[in-house]
Amino acid sequence: MSLRKSSLYCAANLSAFYGPGALNRATVKGSSLKTSDTEQIRLANRKLVVDYLRVHGPVARVDMGPVLKLSPATVTSITSDLQKEGLLVEVPAPSDNVVSRGRPRVLIDLAVDTQFVIGVKLSINEIRLMLGNQKGSIVKTEVIELQTLALSREGLTEALCSALRMFIAKLPVSQKPKAVGLAVQGVVNGHQGEVVWSPALADKHIELKAPMQHELNVPVLVANDANCLAMAVRQQPKYQQLTDFAVVMLGYGVGMGMVVRGELYAGHHGAAAEFGHTKYSPDGAQCLCGKRGCIEAYVGDYALYRDAAAVVRLPQDDHLHPNEDRMMELVELADRNDAAVLDLFERAGRVLGYGVANYIALMSPETIVFSGPGIRAYRHLEAGIRQGLSSALVSELICETSLEAVPWDDDMTGLGVIALALQEVD
Amino acid sequence: MSLRKSSLYCAANLSAFYGPGALNRATVKGSSLKTSDTEQIRLANRKLVVDYLRVHGPVARVDMGPVLKLSPATVTSITSDLQKEGLLVEVPAPSDNVVSRGRPRVLIDLAVDTQFVIGVKLSINEIRLMLGNQKGSIVKTEVIELQTLALSREGLTEALCSALRMFIAKLPVSQKPKAVGLAVQGVVNGHQGEVVWSPALADKHIELKAPMQHELNVPVLVANDANCLAMAVRQQPKYQQLTDFAVVMLGYGVGMGMVVRGELYAGHHGAAAEFGHTKYSPDGAQCLCGKRGCIEAYVGDYALYRDAAAVVRLPQDDHLHPNEDRMMELVELADRNDAAVLDLFERAGRVLGYGVANYIALMSPETIVFSGPGIRAYRHLEAGIRQGLSSALVSELICETSLEAVPWDDDMTGLGVIALALQEVD
Repeated sequence: MSLRKSSLYCAANLSAFYGPGALNRATVKGSSLKTSDTEQIRLANRKLVVDYLRVHGPVARVDMGPVLKLSPATVTSITSDLQKEGLLVEVPAPSDNVVSRGRPRVLIDLAVDTQFVIGVKLSINEIRLMLGNQKGSIVKTEVIELQTLALSREGLTEALCSALRMFIAKLPVSQKPKAVGLAVQGVVNGHQGEVVWSPALADKHIELKAPMQHELNVPVLVANDANCLAMAVRQQPKYQQLTDFAVVMLGYGVGMGMVVRGELYAGHHGAAAEFGHTKYSPDGAQCLCGKRGCIEAYVGDYALYRDAAAVVRLPQDDHLHPNEDRMMELVELADRNDAAVLDLFERAGRVLGYGVANYIALMSPETIVFSGPGIRAYRHLEAGIRQGLSSALVSELICETSLEAVPWDDDMTGLGVIALALQEVD
Repeated sequence: MSLRKSSLYCAANLSAFYGPGALNRATVKGSSLKTSDTEQIRLANRKLVVDYLRVHGPVARVDMGPVLKLSPATVTSITSDLQKEGLLVEVPAPSDNVVSRGRPRVLIDLAVDTQFVIGVKLSINEIRLMLGNQKGSIVKTEVIELQTLALSREGLTEALCSALRMFIAKLPVSQKPKAVGLAVQGVVNGHQGEVVWSPALADKHIELKAPMQHELNVPVLVANDANCLAMAVRQQPKYQQLTDFAVVMLGYGVGMGMVVRGELYAGHHGAAAEFGHTKYSPDGAQCLCGKRGCIEAYVGDYALYRDAAAVVRLPQDDHLHPNEDRMMELVELADRNDAAVLDLFERAGRVLGYGVANYIALMSPETIVFSGPGIRAYRHLEAGIRQGLSSALVSELICETSLEAVPWDDDMTGLGVIALALQEVD
């Protein structure tokens, strides 16, 4: 007899991530799949092709089918549709120093200038607006400084909308955005498009998606910055095909974005994954959230700098709000083998490893990626991370989970939120 | 302009959970969805109908479509196929004390006697075999006692296969099983069908799926007992439509099964979710896994009884292996307001709440369900759980997550593994 193989029916739906309730609708066992929905399958396959080209293009048509498990006929049909719509272009393959006979090989890629979205990054006293093209690149940036902590909730919506309106007004018609993505530090309910709490804002529970959509008349999504970072990492060719991994965002606080079964995951209440507020120790160090012993209270920039101020001579600053220069000075102290600072980073690493152990025990992931501005100190954290992990978790549960660092640059949140916004358009 | 709604393409695929590598294949962005695969959609919708009938039947045809978001035509087509295959029967609706005019209303349900699977529960010194019918009920049970800790890895496979062969030989031809599910305490790699570690076995890393399939010539799946419990909970009408929740299994150890986007989730390495080995405290209580400070080392039966032995007079037993009677005596001491025992349970509750706080921070679930034999003490744990949770996590992250207890009985693991095995057959 033949053993039944598990058949499968699950298609790309990253865009469901941030729709209101979309996650639920998408996952109630595919309940809205209709027998007649071949059109939906066509769209899903088209999405696969677009996603792949965005990350890997230019590529040869023939190379795409095997990776995406689509038939040559399907690939040809989808790519010729995209080409007719002006979304896809043919580019000559680079010559490979061999005198080739016959037709020159042709590669395909997404056209860069046919569809645009805007990514907005809201942080303390700054609104950063970025125009993204179809390939997910940032082609124009504008920064607006304002006192975010002084804004009322209506004032915030108005400030964001007017910044966007001015930004859009200066764009040629061909670059008008088809969607807007907003990346916010803090706790975000992605389903509701609500900022639950952010260090950049005085008020809590500010709904942004609905009023901004109403004002701007384009789809708006709101995402936590760590989830945006996870999306940016996922746009890197090495990570695009991974299905179950997490990205730890090290910085002022500590965040996480998780990819589960190939899709970014925000959980039922839309607030996942607040790794920084999982715990290291009951009654441990004071966290900015109000509780004690959170991972972030040992590993976040503010925690490292606050603790360093107690043991080494540092500028008489606001030790709870170190800027990048201050943090780099701390790293340089460690580079020069300052024992107290090395100790601090090593302890932070151990705490991080301990937190990662909890994640691995629960989620059995393929990979844990570390990134974010705090990656500047990774060389001083890494041994501690591995030590924390192996002291917390038996090897049978660590499995083959790999720990990796991805370099950080300031554009990553923007690239991630643009990638999310593009999924509204695809 | 109209705002695009996130469309969706994701269909039921619980059976992908335990196939070798199936999880990955299923989730690489639906890569094997072909444009021509209307047949797969039909199968997915059929699965939805069967799943629903298994839990909710008997029901009226007309009531099913709206819940499953299937058109009346689709429901009719699927149910008449099932009826032709003998898998579905019509049953008269109970009369409702109203003199009804016109045709009597007819309900549909799965036929109980057309397809069977076997669930096997392997625990210390016991193999329990259970025949499950199409509705997921246990219709026949046999228990074999043997010294599991004395078995070699080959001996274990042989013991399981011969127990199954004898059990099957006694069944009428019509009840021959179409799949076998094996539930094992401990760490299980569900994808590989391998027992990584179990308290019932001396050896580690015992592959069972492949050799048992080879011997028995039916599909075999291997699952952790807590994942089986989560499946059993999911078969209860109240929980079947929840998409993102976790079931904590309290007992000798502490386990967890998680449902993510409507499907049981075992992670990339197949070992999720080992909640019992997430941490309460570095350098905390000794856990049986070899590490210190695991949740289980405070909450598992062995930990509670071991700690109780230090503070109250208990029988001169093996304090690390309390049986159900011993645990009930402990609960009775708490019922009689023994301060030391009440204290122990309350502390265990707080540790549990602290662990649950980590899960909620990471996963933002809708509900956390507690069950398993350890639920016997829930009335003494509950206040501690809520206290632990609220002392660990800010309310913005707890959201509206509800904590619920589901009564335990000995059949639940069996019902869960039978539910999993049935998904191989559907």
